[in-house]
Amino acid sequence: MHSANLQLNGEDKLKHFLTIDGLKREVLTRILDAAEPFTEESQRTVKKLPLLTGTVICNLFFDTSPRLQASFEVAAKRLSADVLNLDINIPATSGDETLLDTLRNLEAMHVDLFVVRHPDSGAAHFIARHVAPHVSVINAGDGHHAHPTQAMLDMFTIRRYKEEFVGLRVAIIGDVLHSGVARSQILALNTLGTSEVRVIGPPTLLPTDTRTLGVHVFHDLEEGIDDADVIILLRLQKERMNSALLPGGQEYFRLYGLTGERLQAAKQNVIILHPGPMNRGVELDSKVADGPRSVIPQQVSFGIAIRMAIMSMTIETQQVTGK
Amino acid sequence: MHSANLQLNGEDKLKHFLTIDGLKREVLTRILDAAEPFTEESQRTVKKLPLLTGTVICNLFFDTSPRLQASFEVAAKRLSADVLNLDINIPATSGDETLLDTLRNLEAMHVDLFVVRHPDSGAAHFIARHVAPHVSVINAGDGHHAHPTQAMLDMFTIRRYKEEFVGLRVAIIGDVLHSGVARSQILALNTLGTSEVRVIGPPTLLPTDTRTLGVHVFHDLEEGIDDADVIILLRLQKERMNSALLPGGQEYFRLYGLTGERLQAAKQNVIILHPGPMNRGVELDSKVADGPRSVIPQQVSFGIAIRMAIMSMTIETQQVTGK
Amino acid sequence: MHSANLQLNGEDKLKHFLTIDGLKREVLTRILDAAEPFTEESQRTVKKLPLLTGTVICNLFFDTSPRLQASFEVAAKRLSADVLNLDINIPATSGDETLLDTLRNLEAMHVDLFVVRHPDSGAAHFIARHVAPHVSVINAGDGHHAHPTQAMLDMFTIRRYKEEFVGLRVAIIGDVLHSGVARSQILALNTLGTSEVRVIGPPTLLPTDTRTLGVHVFHDLEEGIDDADVIILLRLQKERMNSALLPGGQEYFRLYGLTGERLQAAKQNVIILHPGPMNRGVELDSKVADGPRSVIPQQVSFGIAIRMAIMSMTIETQQVTGK
Repeated sequence: MHSANLQLNGEDKLKHFLTIDGLKREVLTRILDAAEPFTEESQRTVKKLPLLTGTVICNLFFDTSPRLQASFEVAAKRLSADVLNLDINIPATSGDETLLDTLRNLEAMHVDLFVVRHPDSGAAHFIARHVAPHVSVINAGDGHHAHPTQAMLDMFTIRRYKEEFVGLRVAIIGDVLHSGVARSQILALNTLGTSEVRVIGPPTLLPTDTRTLGVHVFHDLEEGIDDADVIILLRLQKERMNSALLPGGQEYFRLYGLTGERLQAAKQNVIILHPGPMNRGVELDSKVADGPRSVIPQQVSFGIAIRMAIMSMTIETQQVTGK
Repeated sequence: MHSANLQLNGEDKLKHFLTIDGLKREVLTRILDAAEPFTEESQRTVKKLPLLTGTVICNLFFDTSPRLQASFEVAAKRLSADVLNLDINIPATSGDETLLDTLRNLEAMHVDLFVVRHPDSGAAHFIARHVAPHVSVINAGDGHHAHPTQAMLDMFTIRRYKEEFVGLRVAIIGDVLHSGVARSQILALNTLGTSEVRVIGPPTLLPTDTRTLGVHVFHDLEEGIDDADVIILLRLQKERMNSALLPGGQEYFRLYGLTGERLQAAKQNVIILHPGPMNRGVELDSKVADGPRSVIPQQVSFGIAIRMAIMSMTIETQQVTGK
Repeated sequence: MHSANLQLNGEDKLKHFLTIDGLKREVLTRILDAAEPFTEESQRTVKKLPLLTGTVICNLFFDTSPRLQASFEVAAKRLSADVLNLDINIPATSGDETLLDTLRNLEAMHVDLFVVRHPDSGAAHFIARHVAPHVSVINAGDGHHAHPTQAMLDMFTIRRYKEEFVGLRVAIIGDVLHSGVARSQILALNTLGTSEVRVIGPPTLLPTDTRTLGVHVFHDLEEGIDDADVIILLRLQKERMNSALLPGGQEYFRLYGLTGERLQAAKQNVIILHPGPMNRGVELDSKVADGPRSVIPQQVSFGIAIRMAIMSMTIETQQVTGK
């Protein structure tokens, strides 16, 4: 609840975008609607919009992720903002005075928005609590906790292909336990009224608070995706593959890898999502990755539109509220 | 004197900005005045000015300093210049043919201004002597020698809060001996007519040519800041903390760390400056850093304005003179 | 032939720029002509052109070359494009699925042009074969294979100083065998009708298919540059200097280093080119490098114009064809 307060102003407008937690359905819908005019098909002729001219957006990535950083950079530049990519050498602990001093310093240079990626849960919240009133923060992933822009681009993709969330059965396959992406997706799916959300994986990789989360648990892949409208694959982190929790990438593929054959269990018009980068031969085989049910490239395109929407919404709120 | 000639054209206009040494009061005042319209409060509505559209500014940092580099990048982009951040792998010796070939190469790509940071004293002068007639050079710190843009943003901050330099007592605390920042500040303060400039620190960290410099020397902190209008803290470099010159950060704080109690010795309306990044618990405690007398965040903001002023002045001079 | 097809559309317009191989004289001439209005002297007043506003150009450098990357970045920004410098950590093997997934990802972010530098021969072709229909690829050097933008800026420089290729004797000195630059230069010179192309170097560094290439071979420097109108020096790679193929940099200079004395053998109005970065005292002495016959800095300036021309031509073709 306090996170909701932190990211919304008095009129329920987004000041920051830190987590799906505590956001009402109408706020999520407003974000999805705001992204529509920013999609590629809408932008063929006018590729660059003057919405954020003179605004400085700073990518604060304590955790390298070149493709994600590129996505935020492209989104910012299409809005005519200036982008500062900071090569940070300060230690990756959040809550630190040195981190705060760096932030205050950048703020004093008139940075309007920080896009923060950090391995620690709560890092973006910590930063949002300490920035100046006119500065916005977007969480670009804080470890196991949340990755809300990824979740929203997934929701945008699902809405594009399925129109309504009511009536949908969505299956999330993989390491749900350690995934901020999955946590954000589940919250968003339930908030938007999805009829059934399932998680599929070995017991070691699934959360135990499934009732609170509002998901059904499956350990068998084919059972789990039975009659599914949407399948979301999670990236299996390398460090997990060689850990005690899992018997390795090959064994994972044998049990949970999505193949054309297994896909038969799902609905015919199922769509397949993956946050990327894919491990082909681990989470799925190449035929499925490049096949007709995959909407993985579309996700990336819609990611630009969603990030443009969230950037312009948060900055607009803060410029009015803060100044 | 020769440095003054190098950075000024026949009409006393800035072609380069390399050092405070040899610049008359009116030149410094002209820079301070030029920065006024670029401050944040003046820029609320029009955030981006078209003054340097089409100009290419190249950050040549042989010495990493991400925050300083960000400051120059933001300043350049607010003037609508294009910024080239070069990742240089050439050895850090100035006077080198390889360095000159790199410069000539970038010049031939129509770079209009080099912002140079280099650990060697005189590196920016060396480069300024060798660039083409239409190219400007700004010194962003050359080791122990000079850091003139930092000094000018400090002067701007002091003038904002104190209006006049005449009548002021300014105390500089710390490693004056190895600090290009301090050297540039002392020159600027004296040129602008400051009534008294004091330096405070252990004998091992203070220069011996204090008479030439025009400063009064104090080894005791409270004596030194007695009745001061302005206190400037210098960053204590890590390598100094563990050297024979100093008994370590804690011992330094015991002797020279600025605390609320010690601050009583200064004037009630004293302002406290620090070039950043601060070492909290070494040069000062957090209460002072975040307290009402600190103008440290304002310095950073004014730094953007000062750098915008110096960039546009030098480029304007060179474009007219050189071409 | 297939490479020509890959880089040209049905109307012989450039979609990609991968190699000189298979391009007719009129295509090369069209590129040279297109670069004319982009040269510095033509651009004094209007420094930034709105030709590629809203276009995203992505530098994909698997092989660091900061100066070359800067050249493409400056060219792109002068055309008002947005530039994405990607820090790629994926392994440098071309033909890889991971590489393709990264490309598809960037494509989905609406990248319009990839500038690719890669140590493997054929890497740019591989990428061009796999990009979406509306995306262009420029080869910024693929190992020993080709470096066509370098060759075209050399052709532009030669045409500027010599007007016609017919009647010219051009001598290329150095490691022709391992140089994609030399291979592209020879193809371009012959296509443009140069009367005689010579290659000069020790047998270990010269190709054996000289008849197919259309060059005359010389092992003695002075014989080779006798009556030459144009001398092109190749950079001697460090790894070559200490290999079995060569007795080291000093010995190379003794045999093939260009000095003022040796230059007497060439025509009085000979021009000297070098792709940079030069090894002074290896390929040439400093007097020649900085002397009146050197057009090395001009090459760099013309490189911006040539790259602007190729960028705008390929993007224009793809935007019309692909979309």
